[in-house]
Amino acid sequence: MSGSTFGTLFKITTWGESHGAGIGVVVDGCPAGLELCTKDIQKFLDRRRPGASQFATQRKESDSVELLSGIFEGRTTGTPISMLIRNTSQRSSDYNDIASYYRPGHADYTFDQKYGFRDYRGGGRSSGRETIGRVAAGAVAAKLLAELGIVVTAYTHAIGGIEISMDNFDLEEARKNLTGMPDKEASAKAEAYLKECMTNLDSAGGIVACKVSNMPTGIGEPVFDKLDATLAKAILSIGAVKAFEIGDGVNVSAANGSTNNDSFRICDGIVTKATNHAGGILGGLSDGSEILLKAHFKPTPSIFQKQETINKNKEEISIQIKGRHDPIIVPRAVVVVEAMTAITILDMLLQNMSARVDKIKEFYHH
Amino acid sequence: MSGSTFGTLFKITTWGESHGAGIGVVVDGCPAGLELCTKDIQKFLDRRRPGASQFATQRKESDSVELLSGIFEGRTTGTPISMLIRNTSQRSSDYNDIASYYRPGHADYTFDQKYGFRDYRGGGRSSGRETIGRVAAGAVAAKLLAELGIVVTAYTHAIGGIEISMDNFDLEEARKNLTGMPDKEASAKAEAYLKECMTNLDSAGGIVACKVSNMPTGIGEPVFDKLDATLAKAILSIGAVKAFEIGDGVNVSAANGSTNNDSFRICDGIVTKATNHAGGILGGLSDGSEILLKAHFKPTPSIFQKQETINKNKEEISIQIKGRHDPIIVPRAVVVVEAMTAITILDMLLQNMSARVDKIKEFYHH
Amino acid sequence: MSGSTFGTLFKITTWGESHGAGIGVVVDGCPAGLELCTKDIQKFLDRRRPGASQFATQRKESDSVELLSGIFEGRTTGTPISMLIRNTSQRSSDYNDIASYYRPGHADYTFDQKYGFRDYRGGGRSSGRETIGRVAAGAVAAKLLAELGIVVTAYTHAIGGIEISMDNFDLEEARKNLTGMPDKEASAKAEAYLKECMTNLDSAGGIVACKVSNMPTGIGEPVFDKLDATLAKAILSIGAVKAFEIGDGVNVSAANGSTNNDSFRICDGIVTKATNHAGGILGGLSDGSEILLKAHFKPTPSIFQKQETINKNKEEISIQIKGRHDPIIVPRAVVVVEAMTAITILDMLLQNMSARVDKIKEFYHH
Amino acid sequence: MSGSTFGTLFKITTWGESHGAGIGVVVDGCPAGLELCTKDIQKFLDRRRPGASQFATQRKESDSVELLSGIFEGRTTGTPISMLIRNTSQRSSDYNDIASYYRPGHADYTFDQKYGFRDYRGGGRSSGRETIGRVAAGAVAAKLLAELGIVVTAYTHAIGGIEISMDNFDLEEARKNLTGMPDKEASAKAEAYLKECMTNLDSAGGIVACKVSNMPTGIGEPVFDKLDATLAKAILSIGAVKAFEIGDGVNVSAANGSTNNDSFRICDGIVTKATNHAGGILGGLSDGSEILLKAHFKPTPSIFQKQETINKNKEEISIQIKGRHDPIIVPRAVVVVEAMTAITILDMLLQNMSARVDKIKEFYHH
Repeated sequence: MSGSTFGTLFKITTWGESHGAGIGVVVDGCPAGLELCTKDIQKFLDRRRPGASQFATQRKESDSVELLSGIFEGRTTGTPISMLIRNTSQRSSDYNDIASYYRPGHADYTFDQKYGFRDYRGGGRSSGRETIGRVAAGAVAAKLLAELGIVVTAYTHAIGGIEISMDNFDLEEARKNLTGMPDKEASAKAEAYLKECMTNLDSAGGIVACKVSNMPTGIGEPVFDKLDATLAKAILSIGAVKAFEIGDGVNVSAANGSTNNDSFRICDGIVTKATNHAGGILGGLSDGSEILLKAHFKPTPSIFQKQETINKNKEEISIQIKGRHDPIIVPRAVVVVEAMTAITILDMLLQNMSARVDKIKEFYHH
Repeated sequence: MSGSTFGTLFKITTWGESHGAGIGVVVDGCPAGLELCTKDIQKFLDRRRPGASQFATQRKESDSVELLSGIFEGRTTGTPISMLIRNTSQRSSDYNDIASYYRPGHADYTFDQKYGFRDYRGGGRSSGRETIGRVAAGAVAAKLLAELGIVVTAYTHAIGGIEISMDNFDLEEARKNLTGMPDKEASAKAEAYLKECMTNLDSAGGIVACKVSNMPTGIGEPVFDKLDATLAKAILSIGAVKAFEIGDGVNVSAANGSTNNDSFRICDGIVTKATNHAGGILGGLSDGSEILLKAHFKPTPSIFQKQETINKNKEEISIQIKGRHDPIIVPRAVVVVEAMTAITILDMLLQNMSARVDKIKEFYHH
Repeated sequence: MSGSTFGTLFKITTWGESHGAGIGVVVDGCPAGLELCTKDIQKFLDRRRPGASQFATQRKESDSVELLSGIFEGRTTGTPISMLIRNTSQRSSDYNDIASYYRPGHADYTFDQKYGFRDYRGGGRSSGRETIGRVAAGAVAAKLLAELGIVVTAYTHAIGGIEISMDNFDLEEARKNLTGMPDKEASAKAEAYLKECMTNLDSAGGIVACKVSNMPTGIGEPVFDKLDATLAKAILSIGAVKAFEIGDGVNVSAANGSTNNDSFRICDGIVTKATNHAGGILGGLSDGSEILLKAHFKPTPSIFQKQETINKNKEEISIQIKGRHDPIIVPRAVVVVEAMTAITILDMLLQNMSARVDKIKEFYHH
Repeated sequence: MSGSTFGTLFKITTWGESHGAGIGVVVDGCPAGLELCTKDIQKFLDRRRPGASQFATQRKESDSVELLSGIFEGRTTGTPISMLIRNTSQRSSDYNDIASYYRPGHADYTFDQKYGFRDYRGGGRSSGRETIGRVAAGAVAAKLLAELGIVVTAYTHAIGGIEISMDNFDLEEARKNLTGMPDKEASAKAEAYLKECMTNLDSAGGIVACKVSNMPTGIGEPVFDKLDATLAKAILSIGAVKAFEIGDGVNVSAANGSTNNDSFRICDGIVTKATNHAGGILGGLSDGSEILLKAHFKPTPSIFQKQETINKNKEEISIQIKGRHDPIIVPRAVVVVEAMTAITILDMLLQNMSARVDKIKEFYHH
């Protein structure tokens, strides 16, 4: 297999290449009875659509979704939901050059080594367009989570070294500016930084953060399928992510138990925690606090500077990449992180339903 | 399921509680013909055995493994290898207190929420002893990888804020000192720091690094089962890990493409890279360079200071934990990281065998 | 999940309803480098196409396949192959009646019980059209098997009580007549029988047999994933199949060991068996002989006679089904059995590649 | 993998060889809170224990189970239940002969072909003792099903050609006689037949039937994971089973729709069916009627007559098998069929819990 399926009960299978006929996803295991229409999906897809910003590739794609199955009279039927997004703006000629050499930081070389050859047009399957299927599936998951009162929210936490301040946190701002940062001031600085990168024919990286509110407790599985472990896989499976943090993340390795432990407290009769260094997960299971994760994205490898590399004949050459490339992928990756988080959370919620005999008896007997 | 199985073709299933009869693992999918004996496993288990250091729990366990199946005349038969390690030093009385309350930073509360009750003795299934099965399975994977010339090596990269210097790198040192650090000087500083933590009735965290040498290229799957994504899940599934990095990890988010990209080069006719910011993985597939990952461990939550928490009646209380606890788990976790990495790498190597028609024809026709 | 995925390494995911936008399949794990074009798929689809015979539904569908991904320059790339077949001849009005009641022998009642409601148009997901995705995927598997010299051949073994005689076996005959029987005489009798059934407003059942020639030995897994067990699941997952036999099948229960055992023999230096009661599988692994299985299909439940049933208000009613229905599904099911067998065989061949250390070393080292 | 894991949410992994240290199983995904003790398991194991009848191998094994994990204070904790049954009566010397040749009807040859060599002692992993793990796991599943009011009952339906009469059905009889037949008269005839077989140094086959009472409706998944398809795999995965039937099974292929269709009826306000040709499953989902399946077992291949075969040097030889072998395995296989059925039914019940949004909301919100 090429590992194009994710999930155990809520299971998504994506397919498609950057310059093929289209991109798509099959969602198997979506529970029956969810109201769902094209608009629900399109709203998510529009958040990652290219061509909308000076900081994104200028490739114009409407990325319109067609719902092919699994819906009847406006509701999911419990059978697979197949979604198709046609590619419309392929300019394969841009890629003739790269057929013969290996771009630094790209999967060109490793694909050739694995499969013997590759669809080199626009990166083929390793293109960022592969995430369209994830986003479409994530829209379904997020809608169902919303029915349970659970909200997943991703945003840009940092670009280059510029971090947002939680004091300025404003999600509406994030949804309308070009950086995805929920902090107007930081966003302005980041824009300036990105322009500088573009002037230098260079690219930038950044951090996407994602939080999950109103989580039930006890979700996740205690050993290999810990909630955080499964989220880590979901997030690292997004191209260009090189690090994953949950809660305090990399800071825990320099911390002490006395400060890192979160005290349990009672607030209005409800269990809570005085702090949330753990990021909402203890022993792989949700603890009822907000889940907080971070994904570190590397700078786009496609830069317009001259670069050293090799060609298929194993000769060292200099190249200069052309075409339409994002100087940073973070703003468009926000919704991808949100989608993968939603898919993971929902799958674990469904898996959790069979954890207890008393609840199973209740389920089948009343 | 409780998610106690890991892997697709090389598949491990662990079981066991801290204070039950024992701990074990079933390895399914180990190829036939590998020379394997108890000693191969014991060598790995001894590296995580408790009671061997002032910085580890004083619980004395020999952790002797019994090989129950899957071996015939000294070689694996291709059928499941079942391994059993009896618990011998249970002191359940230490844990009577914790039956009634929830320790901060532990899985007590979340287990109760998920399952309705828990085996509270020594943390039950969420104890660090759960990793014994992983280490036993990892010993098998590492032995098979060695047959292919692939070496997996983990070591302590940092404790508290004290990092090793790569200039002093000395693996033999790491295998004999109490910190697992391959740098004598850093190790001495870390020891001093740990003593200070113990004096303060506190605990410490740290970083385990792991490298994989001599990897074939093209290993991993391009979408959800990327090699780094699968490693991330493997590593985050180890209790107490809160962040995962591949290659430059969290540093990529502040980097630029021009410096983060690794140029391909030819060295003696062989493809290589001028740098290795990517940590040996491009597009989810191994690129032939050394794989380098890091796992951030939080400080042991069991500290002897007074702590605030709640009990099962949802009353706020103060507690003081007793028993035998590691002031830091990093030195004993080194071999766990090594084991999980070896298991993942081997599984992906096996999965990769069916990637190409030409190789399949060769396999079945010669 | 709704269980729409089949296979471990060669993995297919089907989707689609009888009267939705279309039907499709995603094949994940097809090895790279297989020459594949629309024609290869269409050839298989045409064998199950409706409207071609007086013994099949008169619904006219061209069932034209569109290859959406996973192919580049005429060869598979190793990434998912997505195939789409649009529905064009939906006559949903035929089904308004059945929205309100439960047809005997159909899944109407059980779908409503499971999901709370159903897409009742033409049976929705439980329609025979669901098998289109299987056939498209089976065409890919069969093509790859052919590269390995393995041939999968299904045919009609019996209709009603009329069985073929192996003495008259003529596969070409089977591919051109209306019954799929490789025996001209039996086919003529079966046609007469089917006409009689139609006159009686009744339907008929039958047996599809499938053989696999030139199988390598040792394919399959020894416990739960036995080759015959996996085939049984593959075949029983086809709607209307009520029994599965391997080799002598139901006859073994009345046999004796002395006659049922197949003696191993040597023929021109090659291991063979004097007989093949086992149907080519011993201990769940292929033994090198021809694999022979049989699938028993029930008569089409949609008959035009008056029938007793209930409606959604739990009232007993009489109904008379209208629309376009096959008086027998066996002739069109032949290629479905062939497809599911090919998919299973290929998947097990891929899984088998990691069975031995010596072969793995050879694979990675030369 | 060697395919030693079965199930999706209720997941069992078996291990062990006939003449190794023991046999065992790990049950992962057993819901928390089930009262369970050694006795519950032993009761099932005793039903397949050897040495108890003249029609069974004379190997004496107590097959005592040890519960190693997953139970606390008499109840399952939700974590893996590991069970160990030591082998105590290995007489490996019986098997020195068979190291060098391939017994007809056994897996000797196919194992050697797959793995390069085999643990030949008593058939190794392909021994009937492999089913001990299944029976132990089945005991757990059956106990949980009983809590839901669901009862799984297997019995011997036929031996040689001798079938039971449903008019004489008496389950108590089946549980105490040597054939497992719930019909005293048929059982007596079968005993006489078996004695004749033994006199002839021959062996016999038979049919095990299994019924599931009080099934909820809508259980199963509609495409590849149909309830009957999954049962077929479960049952065919038992060594020596060569055919599987659900409901009318092989008889449907000669039937007509008008007689094979089961009319829905209302009885005391409850949906029922006038007949049950379908065996309780429609479209892969349970329809609320009794589920009825049949497994056809071949005669034990180990017979004491002289047989023709080949040895490892590919020479044709005559052999005469020694040792302790069952002249028929059917009576001891009854509980194995019951176990595999219980495991499958429970797993599908758990999977079904996430089928509907309204039920998920109810589960998480009240």
